[in-house]
Amino acid sequence: MTEKISTYDYDVAVIGGGPAGYTAAEAAAKVGLSVVLFEKNQLGGTCLNEGCIPTKTLLYSAKLLDNIRSAGKYGIIVPTLPTSDLPKIIARKNKIVRKLQIGVKAKMERAGVHVIIGEAEIVDGCLVRCKDESYTTQNIIICTGSEVFIPNSIPGLCDVPYWTHRDALNCTEPPVSLTVIGGGVIGMEFAAFYHALGTNVTVIEMQDEILGGIDREIASQLRMEYAKRGIVFLLGTKVDSVSQSAGDINTHCTTADGSPVDVTSQRLLIAVGRRPVKPLVENVTQNMYLCGDVNGKSMLAHTAMREAELAVDHILNGSEEKINYHTIPAVVYTNPEVASVGLTEETASSGSRIIRIPMTYSGRFMVENEGANGLCKIIVNESDERILGVHVLGNPASEIIALAGMAIMQKMTIKEWKNVIFPHPTVGEIFHEALS
Amino acid sequence: MTEKISTYDYDVAVIGGGPAGYTAAEAAAKVGLSVVLFEKNQLGGTCLNEGCIPTKTLLYSAKLLDNIRSAGKYGIIVPTLPTSDLPKIIARKNKIVRKLQIGVKAKMERAGVHVIIGEAEIVDGCLVRCKDESYTTQNIIICTGSEVFIPNSIPGLCDVPYWTHRDALNCTEPPVSLTVIGGGVIGMEFAAFYHALGTNVTVIEMQDEILGGIDREIASQLRMEYAKRGIVFLLGTKVDSVSQSAGDINTHCTTADGSPVDVTSQRLLIAVGRRPVKPLVENVTQNMYLCGDVNGKSMLAHTAMREAELAVDHILNGSEEKINYHTIPAVVYTNPEVASVGLTEETASSGSRIIRIPMTYSGRFMVENEGANGLCKIIVNESDERILGVHVLGNPASEIIALAGMAIMQKMTIKEWKNVIFPHPTVGEIFHEALS
Repeated sequence: MTEKISTYDYDVAVIGGGPAGYTAAEAAAKVGLSVVLFEKNQLGGTCLNEGCIPTKTLLYSAKLLDNIRSAGKYGIIVPTLPTSDLPKIIARKNKIVRKLQIGVKAKMERAGVHVIIGEAEIVDGCLVRCKDESYTTQNIIICTGSEVFIPNSIPGLCDVPYWTHRDALNCTEPPVSLTVIGGGVIGMEFAAFYHALGTNVTVIEMQDEILGGIDREIASQLRMEYAKRGIVFLLGTKVDSVSQSAGDINTHCTTADGSPVDVTSQRLLIAVGRRPVKPLVENVTQNMYLCGDVNGKSMLAHTAMREAELAVDHILNGSEEKINYHTIPAVVYTNPEVASVGLTEETASSGSRIIRIPMTYSGRFMVENEGANGLCKIIVNESDERILGVHVLGNPASEIIALAGMAIMQKMTIKEWKNVIFPHPTVGEIFHEALS
Repeated sequence: MTEKISTYDYDVAVIGGGPAGYTAAEAAAKVGLSVVLFEKNQLGGTCLNEGCIPTKTLLYSAKLLDNIRSAGKYGIIVPTLPTSDLPKIIARKNKIVRKLQIGVKAKMERAGVHVIIGEAEIVDGCLVRCKDESYTTQNIIICTGSEVFIPNSIPGLCDVPYWTHRDALNCTEPPVSLTVIGGGVIGMEFAAFYHALGTNVTVIEMQDEILGGIDREIASQLRMEYAKRGIVFLLGTKVDSVSQSAGDINTHCTTADGSPVDVTSQRLLIAVGRRPVKPLVENVTQNMYLCGDVNGKSMLAHTAMREAELAVDHILNGSEEKINYHTIPAVVYTNPEVASVGLTEETASSGSRIIRIPMTYSGRFMVENEGANGLCKIIVNESDERILGVHVLGNPASEIIALAGMAIMQKMTIKEWKNVIFPHPTVGEIFHEALS
């Protein structure tokens, strides 16, 4: 077999066009490096095409629905109950994804990145092959991302028509009932979405609390809120097998106390997690970088982007700067939102102090969240009063958590953070209030 | 006349129980100083009783109304148009104000502040008199706030039943039409509120743009947005006189090009500004501090609180720490919101660079603001790339602007701020995007 050797010669080859890949490619190209980027599907990766962006689009419509239903509390009269037009919600989601895909494409073009659509194989540290062409390169940044993990160990699963997040994102008629296996972030976001649309939702979680890794008290408060609204939670519950009967799917489980429980629903969503997509490469060499989900460290788009920036810094000037993974915020886009950064009450050492404050200590929160409580927890180091962790249950946790990330990153003490002037009235002021 | 000299002897006497006053009193009492606080009306001051909190409560209901009207764009069907129940909106506002008043009162009690309801007169630097009692004190913190300014120079004004913000906050039937004199923050917030409720609103502004002090481009974009929705703006327009006929109020003006214009409406709101309330004191002495609106520097609740904290620091340990007024954010709670901190394009020197980016570069913004544009402007110092100013038009500007205040306060460069990890997808990411 003869092989055509391309005349291309790149400083950097990027494998994968998700947040890590497109960030690395743009950053490298912007400073004058020649860059080729290989993407086997769509630019934007999981995040843009079937993750962050599409789920948040759906969840915003769900939030709007929640808000309209409770508008009476705020003196707004809605004479007829609102309903959802799921095909329209999905169409809008697709439109936003397309627009942002075009944005990423334009970004690559502006930066001068050579984008190749096709699956790349890394032959060695200097050679990448794609669709029978070969490309030589000085550096390789591997950003192949992650994929949904389907636990094939569940007997019967391969014989029933289960959903993954992809199906949940493209359904045009809300199911009457939905069982979600996995009470992590993805499971909870879809549970919240379909619950808002009127679906009867059951969440089955193997651990004894939902949202593993998130501050336990906050996870538990969120669960209790959704339980009050009608979502059924089975915690500490193991799925033994699944089967189908009369169009419905039966999930056979064993609960925490050992009793068998069967959950029957129209649809079954598997949301037990994701795992890295191993790149097609035999040996990782010196000039290869693993950025984003593929390295399995944090599996968040914003981590991926920062890792990509640091990889390019290392290529350019040998910078050894490391990411402090403790300053990376995590968000659950339920309604209310949960956001978290740094150490939790569970992971903090004994030398730390926990500050707890209801979100209603913020006047703005009271104004915008009639009847809601919410919680803000700040973990501080007892000896030097530095901020170690911040956890928020309450809208808009997603937007204010970056303030906490910044405080932790800047190694701020209580006093230093308290000196930051928060505009009044805002929900973000809750941090100032908690530290006072 | 004999005078009863009280046996009280305080470390600190605080005159006025608004944000400056209650913050100063709590901070001083918490560290063991004996504190007396005099309040002539209600604890909480203008901010809580007739300013920030009540207006934001009203504006949230208005925003909800806006959101319900545009719900169709997000795939949510509302079969019958929503209406507002203004008496309920006002009642809810009163309930929230009462709750927060109770909160301030409880705070004072917990800290051990002696609260006296009555007007205080400062006899000299060591003696305060209130309701025929005298109180000796080591230090006096004057937090007497500000009051609405009524331009008595407008002929006819005293003969018509005009509104101040107080009336606008307690109206139970939206007027058919409303003229707002003054296109500053207060004028624009009430214009936005009554417009959302269906009132025909005209805003008369003497300057050639609304929102003086705010980045001009952003103020102009907000004005154009509201003009599109139906608010009439008369810029560069001077009010010559007002009169009443057949129950309506006529505002006689001269426009920028010199032509006379009459605006007729059911109600007239005067919103030309506020001015400090001079304390009852003859000479300011060494041990007196002026905090909050009374010093006329910034007239924002969050500035007042910070000034109060610094006054207490000075009493305690002679700390000479000064406020950097450039790091204080300002927010306009229209829909969309405007928020601003630091230098503007107009106030920055020639050695600065302006970064402009549409808010739609944030995926989350696109998700939550169908069809909206919005704008983010960052002013950086050309030589050292430090952040000098940040200006945002788009929700939730109020909550993300603190990030910019923190960046300016920490004297961050573009590179340093860019290294902060913003969770994805959030609107706050717009700063990272702008700096990339």
